[in-house]
Amino acid sequence: MSETSPSTPTVRNVLITGADGQVGTALREHLADEFSLSALTLHPQAFPSHVADIADLEAIRPAFEGVHAVVHLAASAPVETPWADILHNNLIGTYNVFEAARLAGVDRVVFASSNHAIGMYEFEGSPELFELDDQRTFDHTVPIRPDSLYGVSKAYGEAMGRFYHERHGMAVYCLRIGAMRGDDDPYSERELRGGGGMLGLTPEQTRKRMRAAWLSRGDAARLVRSCLTVADTRWAIVYGISDNPRQYWDIGHARAVLGYDPQDSAPV
Amino acid sequence: MSETSPSTPTVRNVLITGADGQVGTALREHLADEFSLSALTLHPQAFPSHVADIADLEAIRPAFEGVHAVVHLAASAPVETPWADILHNNLIGTYNVFEAARLAGVDRVVFASSNHAIGMYEFEGSPELFELDDQRTFDHTVPIRPDSLYGVSKAYGEAMGRFYHERHGMAVYCLRIGAMRGDDDPYSERELRGGGGMLGLTPEQTRKRMRAAWLSRGDAARLVRSCLTVADTRWAIVYGISDNPRQYWDIGHARAVLGYDPQDSAPV
Repeated sequence: MSETSPSTPTVRNVLITGADGQVGTALREHLADEFSLSALTLHPQAFPSHVADIADLEAIRPAFEGVHAVVHLAASAPVETPWADILHNNLIGTYNVFEAARLAGVDRVVFASSNHAIGMYEFEGSPELFELDDQRTFDHTVPIRPDSLYGVSKAYGEAMGRFYHERHGMAVYCLRIGAMRGDDDPYSERELRGGGGMLGLTPEQTRKRMRAAWLSRGDAARLVRSCLTVADTRWAIVYGISDNPRQYWDIGHARAVLGYDPQDSAPV
Repeated sequence: MSETSPSTPTVRNVLITGADGQVGTALREHLADEFSLSALTLHPQAFPSHVADIADLEAIRPAFEGVHAVVHLAASAPVETPWADILHNNLIGTYNVFEAARLAGVDRVVFASSNHAIGMYEFEGSPELFELDDQRTFDHTVPIRPDSLYGVSKAYGEAMGRFYHERHGMAVYCLRIGAMRGDDDPYSERELRGGGGMLGLTPEQTRKRMRAAWLSRGDAARLVRSCLTVADTRWAIVYGISDNPRQYWDIGHARAVLGYDPQDSAPV
């Protein structure tokens, strides 16, 4: 367990929503020895699991009892997710997670936001933005510019988190997560062949984007660990990428207020 | 009809959602001669009305046919509105209005946001913030700080509006409306006796707040008219108050990008 100040209750019991996704996999691999992990999920996991739909507030409340911190990852994640799923999982689900945490007296929530909350900066800058000598960076203070309904739902989750922090005293950390890969390889052939997503990138441009956007599993776990153990910061919006050779999402704030110290870097 | 550049289609047919509220009343009183107004409402109005629930996308679509601009005022407005109504009217309803506008090819949407999207600045500054010699101001670039679920829903609506502007090419204007009064009197006895709302203000403090927060009906109509006629600005977040003796919400951006020119001022 990392050091915390005497005034900070030690976080031991951590509930993860959406534990079967990319970030959840990283936490299971890297944090299971430090924390007592449980899951709120639609599909039972290899560790204690509460099976319930996050759109049902009463059904999820028991999962929050005795929990010190929640890592809220559950969401419809594809950027093209249609409205009905955005509404059910991302809008209703995120309110329910914050509200269930409040009702159970949970002090700390880590919310998986996304770079898509401000995706129009990338949309506008692509593909020159991905070059090593491009100087543009975007920090946590830039105005919201969602590139999708998914991005809107993440901007909403950040606003919800700030409300629960400021009116209900909860510590809330919003992580605008970059790009993780199922095999933890930023340049997996499968992904490079994938068509470049909404930016319409070629495989070579996708490779250059990943050189900047990648978040390794180890660094994802380091970032979440920072949120679970930091003593003096109780609200932050930060970017989650590894210490990559090109960085247009500024992780200086994550380093400064959370002590995030990434150890991986996408090879040039 | 105000002048528009040759490239801007003239706005004539304007659909108002929530026309029976404070802003809607102002538009009916001041803009009915300039524009052909219709209403999407739960309660038929004195002008052409489509009666439907904005939470039902298919039911509201006919109201958007042949419309040049939408003024979206419908929402559960009390700052203490419970979640079920926020979800139904403000989250689902606002998506539906933008989406119905897109499906009908409507080029322009005015969205009634609220100062409550950033209400924590006022919460934190009260009551000194209301004094004439206090120098603090908040402009359209300050980070979102909702004071309520209502405020969260307005921050969400702004993010949704920006998405529809940037990805669907729609002109979108978000108005963080100050305080309107049913009798258009900033210091009506009924309101001053009202208990000071969530800020817990005395009647005298409420009077001082209204000296800064008031938006007259005439100026509300002027602000919306600016949005319906401006040629060169297709995205803005602005504050909506009259030219009051104290102004902590900065209307300089509304003046600059929309040509908003308030004619009223709360008496000192």
